[in-house]
Amino acid sequence: MATQSITIVRIYLRESEHLLNKIIDFLHNQEKVSGVTVFQGVMGFGSDGQIRTSHLLDLSMDLPLVVEFYDLPERIESIVNHLQNKMALSHIVSWQAESHLRL
Amino acid sequence: MATQSITIVRIYLRESEHLLNKIIDFLHNQEKVSGVTVFQGVMGFGSDGQIRTSHLLDLSMDLPLVVEFYDLPERIESIVNHLQNKMALSHIVSWQAESHLRL
Amino acid sequence: MATQSITIVRIYLRESEHLLNKIIDFLHNQEKVSGVTVFQGVMGFGSDGQIRTSHLLDLSMDLPLVVEFYDLPERIESIVNHLQNKMALSHIVSWQAESHLRL
Repeated sequence: MATQSITIVRIYLRESEHLLNKIIDFLHNQEKVSGVTVFQGVMGFGSDGQIRTSHLLDLSMDLPLVVEFYDLPERIESIVNHLQNKMALSHIVSWQAESHLRL
Repeated sequence: MATQSITIVRIYLRESEHLLNKIIDFLHNQEKVSGVTVFQGVMGFGSDGQIRTSHLLDLSMDLPLVVEFYDLPERIESIVNHLQNKMALSHIVSWQAESHLRL
Repeated sequence: MATQSITIVRIYLRESEHLLNKIIDFLHNQEKVSGVTVFQGVMGFGSDGQIRTSHLLDLSMDLPLVVEFYDLPERIESIVNHLQNKMALSHIVSWQAESHLRL
């Protein structure tokens, strides 16, 4: 089984931050990472402690968003540095994984 | 790039277990973890083998839920012990990751 | 805290590939993995670079899907080999984690 070491990155956001388009633009047009998936949570809370949920009849419900992508470990450092320092993102986690290659 | 070792935890549930509010209350009010995100799956099956999907016109469709959070490794053990032993949760996984810190 | 080493697998798809039922059938009926969760993304792009989003008023919006499951490391290799070679899936990642066991 041929595998390649990769780093998976997850960025945690809230809808109200309105940062998603800027992040997608950066990853898609500037860094040209090979793929990105964005998930919307149905409930969450962050460091302010306020619980947000899609069950409330509240149009401003401000749900959590997670932007997930992976790339070669050596490419991740500069991408994450930019996301942190130029885009002020403060909830970014990453871990090592394997991508399974078809031969 | 400054990073901090963390442990990511994922708890797998089904809607019909009605455990979400109790878990959120524990993580939010008692353990005061810094953030939690809850995702709803569109399809899934568990150890009973029954497939559940949002494509069925079934009001009791009982979709999968995943509760995700992370914290320092030394805080995770007691949190997971409580989730297992006091709340009887049996599908919990965790892995090591890095949190990227803005300096 | 009793834990068991597992491997978590994530398969990245698009709705338009119409592969989900075939994958679920394989994992559920043939491999009998103990659980699978399928998530739908709200936005994403893949190696073709085309951005897909649920915000567009487009019935053919072709959103991302992620199929997630875990099992013992020694079972994963043959499962992933089948997914790659018999089902032609090319976006599969995996990583090591711990399953927390109730005693």
